[in-house]
Amino acid sequence: MDIASPADFHVHLRQGSLSELIVPHVKQGGFHLAYPNLKPPITTTEQALQYKAQLERIDPSIEYLMTLYLSPELRPEEIRKAHAAGIVGVKSYPRGVTTNSDGGIESYQVYYPIFEAMQEVGMVLNLHGEIPSDPATNTCVLNAENHFLPHLFKLHADFPRLRIVLEHATTRAAVDAVKSCGPTVACSITAHHLALTADDWAGQSFHFCKPVAKYPDDREALRQVIREGHPRFFLGSDSAPHPPDAKSTATPEKPCAAGVYTSPVLLPLVAHLLESFGALNRLEGFVSTFGRTFYQRPAVEGKIVRLRRLPQDKTIDGSYQLEGLSLVPFWAGKEMGWEIAN
Amino acid sequence: MDIASPADFHVHLRQGSLSELIVPHVKQGGFHLAYPNLKPPITTTEQALQYKAQLERIDPSIEYLMTLYLSPELRPEEIRKAHAAGIVGVKSYPRGVTTNSDGGIESYQVYYPIFEAMQEVGMVLNLHGEIPSDPATNTCVLNAENHFLPHLFKLHADFPRLRIVLEHATTRAAVDAVKSCGPTVACSITAHHLALTADDWAGQSFHFCKPVAKYPDDREALRQVIREGHPRFFLGSDSAPHPPDAKSTATPEKPCAAGVYTSPVLLPLVAHLLESFGALNRLEGFVSTFGRTFYQRPAVEGKIVRLRRLPQDKTIDGSYQLEGLSLVPFWAGKEMGWEIAN
Repeated sequence: MDIASPADFHVHLRQGSLSELIVPHVKQGGFHLAYPNLKPPITTTEQALQYKAQLERIDPSIEYLMTLYLSPELRPEEIRKAHAAGIVGVKSYPRGVTTNSDGGIESYQVYYPIFEAMQEVGMVLNLHGEIPSDPATNTCVLNAENHFLPHLFKLHADFPRLRIVLEHATTRAAVDAVKSCGPTVACSITAHHLALTADDWAGQSFHFCKPVAKYPDDREALRQVIREGHPRFFLGSDSAPHPPDAKSTATPEKPCAAGVYTSPVLLPLVAHLLESFGALNRLEGFVSTFGRTFYQRPAVEGKIVRLRRLPQDKTIDGSYQLEGLSLVPFWAGKEMGWEIAN
Repeated sequence: MDIASPADFHVHLRQGSLSELIVPHVKQGGFHLAYPNLKPPITTTEQALQYKAQLERIDPSIEYLMTLYLSPELRPEEIRKAHAAGIVGVKSYPRGVTTNSDGGIESYQVYYPIFEAMQEVGMVLNLHGEIPSDPATNTCVLNAENHFLPHLFKLHADFPRLRIVLEHATTRAAVDAVKSCGPTVACSITAHHLALTADDWAGQSFHFCKPVAKYPDDREALRQVIREGHPRFFLGSDSAPHPPDAKSTATPEKPCAAGVYTSPVLLPLVAHLLESFGALNRLEGFVSTFGRTFYQRPAVEGKIVRLRRLPQDKTIDGSYQLEGLSLVPFWAGKEMGWEIAN
C-alpha cells in the first residue's frame, strides 16, 4: 500500500540529546514532513530558523515547517518577516492548559493585529483548543475543549480568510464545530485519541495527555469523520516524548507528565487503527493529502512510503534508548498488523 | 468542638499485616464505628463473624458492623441467619467496575428473593453505583454512575421498604436521584470527593479512585447537600490503602491501583473540608447522626470525640509504616486546621 509522502502536522521534537534520539523517529515512523512544537517557545524568526537548522542537522531528509508562538511580544512586523522567511504558522496555547504552556494566551482580542497580519500574508493559526480549568465556570480537563469552541467560532467569524487549525480535537462537539465552519478551518487528530477513552488514562499515566481522551462517543466521532474522508480533518500526532520516570512515577506532590509518544510507529499504527474501524481506504487522505492541501504543501510526485500488511500481527518494541535516555512508545507490547516496507 | 461518636459507613480494613497497620487508624482518625469491605468477598455469616473477630483482636474499641457480599451463592436463608447474627447489610458491586469486584453482579433481577428477605428482616443494601464500561452504550468511568441511577430507581420502586445506600456518590445527578427517592434511600459521600475533581486525578494516581471524581459542578452538588444538612447524606470514607508502589508506579502493562487512603486523618480532614465550604455546622450530622439514624445505631450518650481548632494549620504526615509496609495518606504534605484533642 503506497502512501504519498506522509506529513505529521503536530509533533514535539524537543532539543539537545532528546532531539537526537527522537528526530530520526519521524522517518522511522514513515513521515516526510514535521510541523514541530518547542519549549521554550519560539517567538522570533531567527529562533525558528535556528531550530530548523538544528533539526536538519539531525535528519535533513525531513521537511520541517516552522512556527512562532503566540505571545504578547509578537508584532505584526515579525509576522511579515517570518512569512518572508518561510515560516508557516503561529501556535496558540491557553495559559496553563498544557505541558509547557506557561507563557500562553488569556484573551485573543489583544492579538487581533497579529491575526490581521497572518490573514494578509497567509499564515496558519494553530489553536490548542482548551480553556483553563475554573470551578466557577465548571471547567475542568473533561470539558475544557468544549468550552473553548466559542473562541474558535469568534476567531473564524472575525477572520474568515485566516486559516485556522483546531489541534488534537477529542470530542464530538469539536468535530461538529469544525465541520460547521468554512473551508479555512481545519482540525488535527492524533493517533492515540483514535484508540483511547477516559477509561484508558484513569490510573494509567502512559495514556495521560492533554487534551485527555473523553467518552466512547467522542472517540467514535473522530473515527466517523475519518471514515467519511472529510478533507479538513487530518493527522497531527502530538507525539510527545517523556522519559519513563516522568510518565510512570507520581508522588503526592508531583503528577505525571502529560504526553503520548507515537512517532516511531506512527504510520503503521494509524493504518492499524483506521483498519480497525473501517477507514483504511482513507489512510492517504488522513496522513497526507488532506493536511498537505490545507497547508498548501503538496506531496512531491513519486515520494511514497510503502506499507506492508504483515502475515501476522507483530508486537511493538517496548522502548527506545540513546545514551542513557529511554522512551516507551504508545502501543508498546501490543500488536500491529502493518510495517513500513521501504 | 465535640462530636458524638463518629461513624464511618464505608471503609476498607483489609486482612493480615495490612490490617494490623490500618485498623488502628480508624480510631486515630477519630471514628468509633466502621462498616468494612473485604476482599475476598464475604459470602457467609461465619466468614463475616470470623472477620469481625479478627478486627476486634486488633482494636476492640471500635464497633464493627458487618456485611455480606451480593453474589449468586447467597440464599434468603443465609440473609435470615446473618440478620440473626447481627450482620447489618449486603454489599453489591457491579462486575468489573471497581478494585476487587470481579465476582460482582450483572443483573439485579436474579437477586430479588434476597432483597425480599433483606426487606423483611431489615437489612441494608449497599450499592456501588456504577455500571461496567461499554462503548456501545457510551459508558466509561466518567458516566458509569449516571448510567447506574435507573437501577437505583427500579430497586427502590420494587422494594420501597428496603433500606438502600448509594455508596460514594460523585455526581449532581446521583445527589438529585437520592433526594428524589423516599426515606429508605440514603447516600454515602467520601471525604476525598469533597476535595477532588477530574483535574486532580488526571496524571496523579494518588487521587485516582473508583468512582473517579468528576466535574467541579458535581463536587459542588456534594458540598451543597452537606451544607443543607440533608439527613440522608452521610460520610462513608471508602478509605482504601494501597502501598505507594501500587499507587505511584504505572507501566504500559499495569495501571495504578484505585483507592484513596483517608482513615488516619479522617475526622480532622472532614472538619477542614466542611469548614472550607461553609458547612462546619453540619459536621456532627454528616459524620455521625445522619448515618447512625439511617443504620439505626444511635451514638451512646457521652461517647464523644473532641476536635480542636489549631492556632495555625499543620502539615499532614507523609506516610505510615509498620513492618515493611508503608502507606501515604490523602492530604499528605498539605495543611489542616484541626486535630483530635482527646
